[in-house]
Amino acid sequence: MSAPDLTRASAVAAAEAIRAGALSSEALVSACLQRIAETDGAIRAWAHLDPEAALAQAREADRLRKAGRATGALHGVPVGLKDIVDTRDMPTELGTAIFAGRQPEMDATLVERLREAGAVIMGKTKTTELAFVHPTDTTNPHDATRTPGGSSSGSAAAVAACHVPLAVGTQTNGSVIRPASFCGTYGFKPSRGIISRQGLLQTSVSLDQVGVFARHIEDAALLADVIGSYDQRDPASLPRPRPAMLAGATAEAPVEPDLAWFDLPHHDRLSPDAREGLEQVIEALGPRVERYGAAPELADLVRVQGIIHEYEICQHLAETFAAHWDRISATLQPVITRGRAISQAQYEDALAVKASAESFFAAFGRDYDAILAPSAAGEAPLLAAGGTGDPIFCTIWTLAGLPCLSLPLLVGENDLPIGVQLIGAAEQDDRLLRTASWLQRQLGQTDEKES
Amino acid sequence: MSAPDLTRASAVAAAEAIRAGALSSEALVSACLQRIAETDGAIRAWAHLDPEAALAQAREADRLRKAGRATGALHGVPVGLKDIVDTRDMPTELGTAIFAGRQPEMDATLVERLREAGAVIMGKTKTTELAFVHPTDTTNPHDATRTPGGSSSGSAAAVAACHVPLAVGTQTNGSVIRPASFCGTYGFKPSRGIISRQGLLQTSVSLDQVGVFARHIEDAALLADVIGSYDQRDPASLPRPRPAMLAGATAEAPVEPDLAWFDLPHHDRLSPDAREGLEQVIEALGPRVERYGAAPELADLVRVQGIIHEYEICQHLAETFAAHWDRISATLQPVITRGRAISQAQYEDALAVKASAESFFAAFGRDYDAILAPSAAGEAPLLAAGGTGDPIFCTIWTLAGLPCLSLPLLVGENDLPIGVQLIGAAEQDDRLLRTASWLQRQLGQTDEKES
Repeated sequence: MSAPDLTRASAVAAAEAIRAGALSSEALVSACLQRIAETDGAIRAWAHLDPEAALAQAREADRLRKAGRATGALHGVPVGLKDIVDTRDMPTELGTAIFAGRQPEMDATLVERLREAGAVIMGKTKTTELAFVHPTDTTNPHDATRTPGGSSSGSAAAVAACHVPLAVGTQTNGSVIRPASFCGTYGFKPSRGIISRQGLLQTSVSLDQVGVFARHIEDAALLADVIGSYDQRDPASLPRPRPAMLAGATAEAPVEPDLAWFDLPHHDRLSPDAREGLEQVIEALGPRVERYGAAPELADLVRVQGIIHEYEICQHLAETFAAHWDRISATLQPVITRGRAISQAQYEDALAVKASAESFFAAFGRDYDAILAPSAAGEAPLLAAGGTGDPIFCTIWTLAGLPCLSLPLLVGENDLPIGVQLIGAAEQDDRLLRTASWLQRQLGQTDEKES
Repeated sequence: MSAPDLTRASAVAAAEAIRAGALSSEALVSACLQRIAETDGAIRAWAHLDPEAALAQAREADRLRKAGRATGALHGVPVGLKDIVDTRDMPTELGTAIFAGRQPEMDATLVERLREAGAVIMGKTKTTELAFVHPTDTTNPHDATRTPGGSSSGSAAAVAACHVPLAVGTQTNGSVIRPASFCGTYGFKPSRGIISRQGLLQTSVSLDQVGVFARHIEDAALLADVIGSYDQRDPASLPRPRPAMLAGATAEAPVEPDLAWFDLPHHDRLSPDAREGLEQVIEALGPRVERYGAAPELADLVRVQGIIHEYEICQHLAETFAAHWDRISATLQPVITRGRAISQAQYEDALAVKASAESFFAAFGRDYDAILAPSAAGEAPLLAAGGTGDPIFCTIWTLAGLPCLSLPLLVGENDLPIGVQLIGAAEQDDRLLRTASWLQRQLGQTDEKES
């Protein structure tokens, strides 16, 4: 492969080639670094990048392999990390000048898992302020006048721009699925509790979840396999086996899957091109999709997510907001002010609704392999519109902790990508991935065309 | 399989049968509990056993499988843990009344890995006092008048007695390999740094290493695969990929391996039956074994290990020794008194010799697939002799952090097991296991006969 091709390689293929000695990690990382150097002036995906440090890791991966030492599942493959994931050898600045130069002493648990898998920690990708509403300066690789989405803005943009084959993000509302949709990558947020949040900025203990970006479904699955682990320091972490993600993504469905679609009140926010594309998907799948009516009890979950999110961020970051209020953006300040006004009783009511929603979806998951849904309202909005796009198409599923996957299947009226979302049953991420691979075959799409 | 057979099943086969729905974890754990009830009155392998708690874990493993949830590599398979491995739901008493009733709040890292793999934490196995010299009351399952070895006494005895297919121990000198030899099980201590020691009693930060007991070589490899992980809270933990243990144990050697044998001064302690058995093995392997002379520089490493071990335990457990000196055994007291007299300069000299030994073996490992050596002086000594047997045949290899495996290949004059030890190059545990499987085939042995 020539250097330009290397940056488009899938992580699965690159790891295999590196393990086989057909490709060096140094060549792969060099090609990625060159691509970053060429394009990141406009995209601004990276918050911290030290090319020499990345190359040193790549050379060490190559040295180990040549010495006959063990190679890992992501041996020599570069991975970007949202800049709220602590790294002991790189700053972690949380998207705000308040934490400029912040240098953690310890790696996040998911970084331990990446090092154990032989991955190259490429650098830190830009996040919105404290992983919430105020945008960073990252642009959409498909159109520099548009947002890449948020809050995992840099991770989505870096993968879309072929800076890295893989990146890690987080989602408390719609921060993986939405930027994946806007940037035309896969975005996969596994079930809550699969991936440890130890060593990540905590904005909502009940809602924060880790997800991944990739240009191939198998790559997203492999990265989730690698970084998923039980970690008793994360109260949501599940003390039991995890679904086998890559095996799920590459499995054949034993029978044709059954999908459900909910017509939800917020669907009136869909752009015409997104609506049309989704209707075509539903039509193409025919009897495989069962359509449900407006379901107002689901719509109320959007409000419930907001209460929990805003109440908890005010609790978790109380000290930061108190000490640095003047350095909090004008976008975030009113949200925090609103959050501070939420009573404990309102919050506890919201948690109770969340629990009942989880029970509802647990029962629902017995009858359906996945829920089909929009990933976002449409193409990436213009930067001039402010913000990072509307997360509402993700809110309910994040609240319930369900595994969510955005597939880059549609193209909008400006030739920009629009994702299609599949949502699985809790802890049945493997079944979700299997269903997603089936869906792609069904629609005559393969992820090769996306890379 | 009838209940008595279940207790003899290999962990690999049991996990496979459980995943396939052909065996329930509850049936397996019940059979093991029954065997414990029948035989542990004489063996005394268990420090803590709560049959209902073990059965509850087994039923949960079965429930997850039946619900179509993910199953792990050790799904539903019971594992015993040396009672210096912290468990948040069982006491961890460190083999001394000083810590009677001690209840950790957190699991050791390796216990997290076991829960993630779906294993049933069967209970805690007896250890010598603070995992050092003073014996516990566990007896050898092959002969109740003999020691099971130490310090991982209960783990070795429990596996040998078919109480569990798998158990975890630790080795600072010879505490995995020696009891495995005496009890006729496999004992595998991977390279230093493969398995985290976070949440284990620390007796020597430089020397403490985790190992496993099993009745089949594949089982030992599988357990090491499961519990090996990078953990930055353990200063010796390796931030890179781990050898694939089970793949190594089941691989064919690409060419006939080359083994080395050192004639060491302490070999004069070998019993005649052990000496004869080992000479027969060397003879059977013919040109595959290269024999090296007395190598006094290796013999000096025994003294060096003692300095580091005794100096460090006095540092790590200074408070315990100061506060509870009258409750320290008469066996351990003189060792601690000796350790306290070691100067920092002596200790630092010893660390320097250790480092040079590691360099020596790193170079040596390029020419040989494994070192062949005794596991112990011979059959398990009589309890009446006091102590837990001589660890000297393990000392050098432990000091250098090399992967060590004891294979139950020989039988002594009293029909009791005697192990043969293979030592690999650092972090080439997979090659060691491959060589061990080759050795067994070469000698016409399979581990089936041991179970």
